[in-house]
Amino acid sequence: MTKKPFVIKRKMTKALQVGNVRVGGGAPIRVQSMTSTDTRDIKATVNQIKRLESAGCEIIRVAVPDQEAAYALGKIKQAIDIPLIADVHFDYRLAIEAVKSGADGIRINPGNMKKERIKEIVQAARDRQVPIRIGVNSGSLEKRLLRRHGGASSSALVESAMDSIRFFEDLQFTNLKISLKSSHVPTMIAAYRSLSKTTRYPLHLGVTEAGSIVHAAVKSSIGIGVLLSEGIGDTLRVSVTGDPLAEIPIAYAILRALDIRRVGPEVISCPTCGRCEIDLEGLVGKVEKKLTGIKADLKIALMGCVVNGPGEAAEADIGIAGGRGTGLLFKKGKIVQKIKESEFIDVLLKEIQMMSDEREEST
Amino acid sequence: MTKKPFVIKRKMTKALQVGNVRVGGGAPIRVQSMTSTDTRDIKATVNQIKRLESAGCEIIRVAVPDQEAAYALGKIKQAIDIPLIADVHFDYRLAIEAVKSGADGIRINPGNMKKERIKEIVQAARDRQVPIRIGVNSGSLEKRLLRRHGGASSSALVESAMDSIRFFEDLQFTNLKISLKSSHVPTMIAAYRSLSKTTRYPLHLGVTEAGSIVHAAVKSSIGIGVLLSEGIGDTLRVSVTGDPLAEIPIAYAILRALDIRRVGPEVISCPTCGRCEIDLEGLVGKVEKKLTGIKADLKIALMGCVVNGPGEAAEADIGIAGGRGTGLLFKKGKIVQKIKESEFIDVLLKEIQMMSDEREEST
Repeated sequence: MTKKPFVIKRKMTKALQVGNVRVGGGAPIRVQSMTSTDTRDIKATVNQIKRLESAGCEIIRVAVPDQEAAYALGKIKQAIDIPLIADVHFDYRLAIEAVKSGADGIRINPGNMKKERIKEIVQAARDRQVPIRIGVNSGSLEKRLLRRHGGASSSALVESAMDSIRFFEDLQFTNLKISLKSSHVPTMIAAYRSLSKTTRYPLHLGVTEAGSIVHAAVKSSIGIGVLLSEGIGDTLRVSVTGDPLAEIPIAYAILRALDIRRVGPEVISCPTCGRCEIDLEGLVGKVEKKLTGIKADLKIALMGCVVNGPGEAAEADIGIAGGRGTGLLFKKGKIVQKIKESEFIDVLLKEIQMMSDEREEST
Repeated sequence: MTKKPFVIKRKMTKALQVGNVRVGGGAPIRVQSMTSTDTRDIKATVNQIKRLESAGCEIIRVAVPDQEAAYALGKIKQAIDIPLIADVHFDYRLAIEAVKSGADGIRINPGNMKKERIKEIVQAARDRQVPIRIGVNSGSLEKRLLRRHGGASSSALVESAMDSIRFFEDLQFTNLKISLKSSHVPTMIAAYRSLSKTTRYPLHLGVTEAGSIVHAAVKSSIGIGVLLSEGIGDTLRVSVTGDPLAEIPIAYAILRALDIRRVGPEVISCPTCGRCEIDLEGLVGKVEKKLTGIKADLKIALMGCVVNGPGEAAEADIGIAGGRGTGLLFKKGKIVQKIKESEFIDVLLKEIQMMSDEREEST
């Protein structure tokens, strides 16, 4: 693919500093996640964050349901390298405690906290130059908005966000990020589209309650993907029920699919049909597993037949087009060698490691 | 969600009849798949098609690499209920044989067949009123187009399709469907967008070589999802390396996420955070597995805590908001009963089965 088929004109937003990571204002679109551990269990939480970090997570959020969790943030922060966001509901004091413990950002939900209390959070955040995310969520909108809009519609989400933005701006606090999550993809798309027309704050994209891994991948890819393709969004989170580690490859796959950021190798492989003469599914699974940790931008093609195989493999940095018991190894369109099926993985991984050592992430 | 957040204005296309299934012209967007068996193995192929059929596959394609496979089509066709498409490359005689064997449609790739030969296929297809899909593929474009466009760009894909369309129209054959697949999502999006402006033939959407299940879900969801959200597309296939059965739930999840077709239950579940007090991932996995075969449109919420749980669960047809060892069962926003965690699945599935018996697919 020599020419870009379409150019995404990114909506310019205000730049924020979240710990050591820049968000918005043209910075790369950031990949976030959230821990699923008990935040008070410092060891388990740090372990999970370290795993997320090495998978490519750039900003991590933890739930802060009580004082003990708020205190734990200090120790967690010391043990990790990426910015730490405190997710606080209901109790404004937990947000203030989290800021004091060293959180790099606070996420609050305007639907479940009184405005008067938020003023005190703003004071703490201002003192430590910590940004606040206004995390509007269709599941916890203010009752008066639900009544006025006849439900958790996109306009209700946007109005909730705009109310909060005005409130913060009246306090001269503009160190803000906004999210408008819904489990209903069209609602989420419509809400972000609308809000992005009226504000310049960085937007954090996500679909809530997206479900188990495949369903989460579908809903997040459509919701986040449609918006990114329109230039909307500065950070994102793919929500998956279960181990958050699964969120990171999906997030990068979304960014990669739209040519926005290319981190790590991409494996392309044919869907296997009646023509396939090798165990392609097994091969893809084994190769993908072995690629963990490789950050270089490489396109790897694993093709099961001669009909589409060589054509696609020619576009990849490296590829195998398999036949009956043997295969052709390609590098940048040139045939390098003929190899036995039993040697596919070893030969391929050795080549990939060499190519990887020469490269890094490209954008 | 009471109001539609955005209305997808579907591009009106020519209606085709593919066996007993209408495609285009406002018909529901059809879900297709392709077998991964050896087509000559009639028993294995029929078994796979039957499994795909009961999962919701509406049109099935099989590879026809030789005469024996072409002859097998007749027997396969007799044993299945959904339309059967023959996928033919290189050898025009296989396409003619497939039509004679009773195929409901033919897919050919203009990049690997001579125009003169295609005339004979057209004659056979016309005699039996069988539609032809022009399946353009970035991996097998005509060499002269690759040279002129500097690679397999979206404009090269569109030009290949338009050349073929003109060729068929000169023969007064307009019983056509078109696809423009690429493994590069932006290329595929740009190509379909462009073609949909200039033709009224139904479009079959897909991303090729999409890879293993999660990556395929991401790439297909973005590529197909962006186009569907713009009203483009009449049939679709999600390509997954491995068992094609995995393609069907992803296809319906894409259609459902955009409120286009709602077939089968949707499970929403929170991503689990430090607040979660039940084994939500285990619960979601078990419930999803038990839902196989239920075609009713139901929204089922499985929530791990009280912060977002009750709010979201209230929007679902049925839901559980779990606490420590117990949970609240909701139906259409009303609390029905308090149940023990050990009884979650049994109670939920009994209720779902009852609700399912009362309903069917809605659009």
